[in-house]
Amino acid sequence: MTATWVPVPEGCGFTVDNLPYGVFTPLRFGRPDGLPRVGVAIGEHVLDLAAMWAGTPLGADLSTGSLNRLLRRGPREWAYVRTEVRRMLTGSERREFCEHALHPLAQVRLHLPFEVADYVDFYASEAHATNLGRILRPQQAEPLLPNWRHLPVGYHGRAGTVVASGAEIPRPCGQLTAGQFGPSARLDVEAEVGFVVGSGSERGTPVPTSAFTDHVFGVVLVNDWSARDIQAFEYQPLGPFLGKSFATSLSPWVVPLAALEHARIPTPEQDPEPLPYLREKEPWGLDLDLEVRLNGHLLSRPRFRDTYWSPAQLLAHLTVNGASLRTGDLYASGTVSGWGPDERGSLIELSWNGQQPLQLPDGERSFLQDGDLVEISASAPGPDGTRISLGAVTGRITPARI
Amino acid sequence: MTATWVPVPEGCGFTVDNLPYGVFTPLRFGRPDGLPRVGVAIGEHVLDLAAMWAGTPLGADLSTGSLNRLLRRGPREWAYVRTEVRRMLTGSERREFCEHALHPLAQVRLHLPFEVADYVDFYASEAHATNLGRILRPQQAEPLLPNWRHLPVGYHGRAGTVVASGAEIPRPCGQLTAGQFGPSARLDVEAEVGFVVGSGSERGTPVPTSAFTDHVFGVVLVNDWSARDIQAFEYQPLGPFLGKSFATSLSPWVVPLAALEHARIPTPEQDPEPLPYLREKEPWGLDLDLEVRLNGHLLSRPRFRDTYWSPAQLLAHLTVNGASLRTGDLYASGTVSGWGPDERGSLIELSWNGQQPLQLPDGERSFLQDGDLVEISASAPGPDGTRISLGAVTGRITPARI
Repeated sequence: MTATWVPVPEGCGFTVDNLPYGVFTPLRFGRPDGLPRVGVAIGEHVLDLAAMWAGTPLGADLSTGSLNRLLRRGPREWAYVRTEVRRMLTGSERREFCEHALHPLAQVRLHLPFEVADYVDFYASEAHATNLGRILRPQQAEPLLPNWRHLPVGYHGRAGTVVASGAEIPRPCGQLTAGQFGPSARLDVEAEVGFVVGSGSERGTPVPTSAFTDHVFGVVLVNDWSARDIQAFEYQPLGPFLGKSFATSLSPWVVPLAALEHARIPTPEQDPEPLPYLREKEPWGLDLDLEVRLNGHLLSRPRFRDTYWSPAQLLAHLTVNGASLRTGDLYASGTVSGWGPDERGSLIELSWNGQQPLQLPDGERSFLQDGDLVEISASAPGPDGTRISLGAVTGRITPARI
Repeated sequence: MTATWVPVPEGCGFTVDNLPYGVFTPLRFGRPDGLPRVGVAIGEHVLDLAAMWAGTPLGADLSTGSLNRLLRRGPREWAYVRTEVRRMLTGSERREFCEHALHPLAQVRLHLPFEVADYVDFYASEAHATNLGRILRPQQAEPLLPNWRHLPVGYHGRAGTVVASGAEIPRPCGQLTAGQFGPSARLDVEAEVGFVVGSGSERGTPVPTSAFTDHVFGVVLVNDWSARDIQAFEYQPLGPFLGKSFATSLSPWVVPLAALEHARIPTPEQDPEPLPYLREKEPWGLDLDLEVRLNGHLLSRPRFRDTYWSPAQLLAHLTVNGASLRTGDLYASGTVSGWGPDERGSLIELSWNGQQPLQLPDGERSFLQDGDLVEISASAPGPDGTRISLGAVTGRITPARI
């Protein structure tokens, strides 16, 4: 682990090898003190990058209340900023200046880190797709649909309802079956990993797997809240719509790809061999360990390492038809589930569609109840056996408004 | 028809009762002369609204190169601007000033009229859904799926690839079936009507049908280009993705709802009676006549009047789960088809999935060929037996880039 003069407590994943980006407002006596600006997490503090580059064009881009202007600058600038921040936090030259720009995490408000352009959600976990197939089509011997091993299945979600971690999630209402309207009785969590596009691309020009790091800046955690009853009635033939579009929660910290070098692993073996546009020269599987908690109780530990399609493959697929990318595009993996029963990333899997309710300290649970607080957190290998943290995304269910 | 001092040729649908909004750049000797700004079409001219309100905050909002800032101002301001423009164009007080702000349509470049926030596409035409059911599920007696009459089926499309009328449409590539990659051989048009959201709404609060005009500013024409082969292989279970996301073309003129009062009609009878949240006190069916042309040849005349779900019902459905609206949200009807064989809004219907190729002056056609130019235009009843025009959306297919 690289040494920094900022105190980083034992076991804290916001090391100087991590340095995730977020948007924060300092608080003074509990009230906002100034405007939202970009910072990086280090230990139990956030370093105000707008202050570090005050008076420069970069500083202006870091003072806009979102990461988008930094994202738009592209990979060379991302590398420059990261190198400079690491130098500041490991060397002594600018220590005094930096100390004035460090805010305790307990005294800041964290915001949605970027403005989402388009939001795409995939279905890239084989264990998840297999579990859903077994639950929803038990009469069929093959749980995966015929296209699943040939391409990453995905769809567009609603960008306008991507919300910050901590935002309340009112229970959605909708048609639960023909002619029956009411609050969803099967409200679920989906623990996902999201990828944040920094540099856009031209319409008509696909982005190959090899250009992944030219376009993708980093990684967030996503809770793609799902109303299973609303979704089940509406989804034929055009896919999920109101069963998903009421809210999607994002973690406050975007971990740059540069911090995940030690987490890179090969993807699981793919059979059949993917078409050329989906092949990778350098694998972009990621060894991320997720944890899903309900009211503080650990529900599961989904492993991203088992995910069938890598994020570089997802990006290549998303653009192979010539669809362009924009700064702020977000695409997510879909529910991350490992093969073990304690590695499932959704309640529909954990409770096997309500057939095996979970026994929790505060009662039995098949789907979410009003008042439930969900937290998804994750970590990844860093250098020298250390772990870096992806932080956490939380959200609490509030009663339906009818 | 209200009288104006601007010449409006016989049969021209850009009357003073219409006044659609767009974004244009004046051309001088064929080159852009100044920045994009908001204007309204009148006869064979466009009136520069940024010039009319120069030096005011409204003028600044009209000089941004998109309608979004005007849209954000809400229905009272929309009514104010429309009233003032009508006064300018019908009275003599400001005639001389206005004349300096009129540009011949032949000497302007038209742009995408607004920045699209989220794009939702519905499936609201019963004739279209019935035709597709008969084509894709011929073995089933009932062509409509069980949910169709209970709720407006819809999905999110890609906002980032919504393009201006006239933009080239490169033929998309993709997986046409398992393991087979190439240019789509079944590229199609979908003639649709789109609705432009001006005023946003709060997450968690549904928008009732009665609040339609509080939020929706106006109407555009949409060509939701579709690659039927890509879509057919990918769409289970999450709906259309790459089969649609390569491009969606929009007409340059947004006709305000205020111009469509004479086009309002009841929706077709709905059976079963819709749930309370989908009922309308004042019907928002619209009597729009569309025309689809391929290389100048009239292919069909889809009638929007037969559309099962009204735009107010679509909006109520879109938000009933608490999904919020943003300025710039676009939602479209889905392919508009009437019941007659010459009223179908897509080639898959017109050629009955290629079984009955169209005989056109330039050859046989089941789906689009490279070089094909598609134009969708529409008109609606105005006052005193006149017609107002919704303009047209065009796009030409260019060869796949591989």
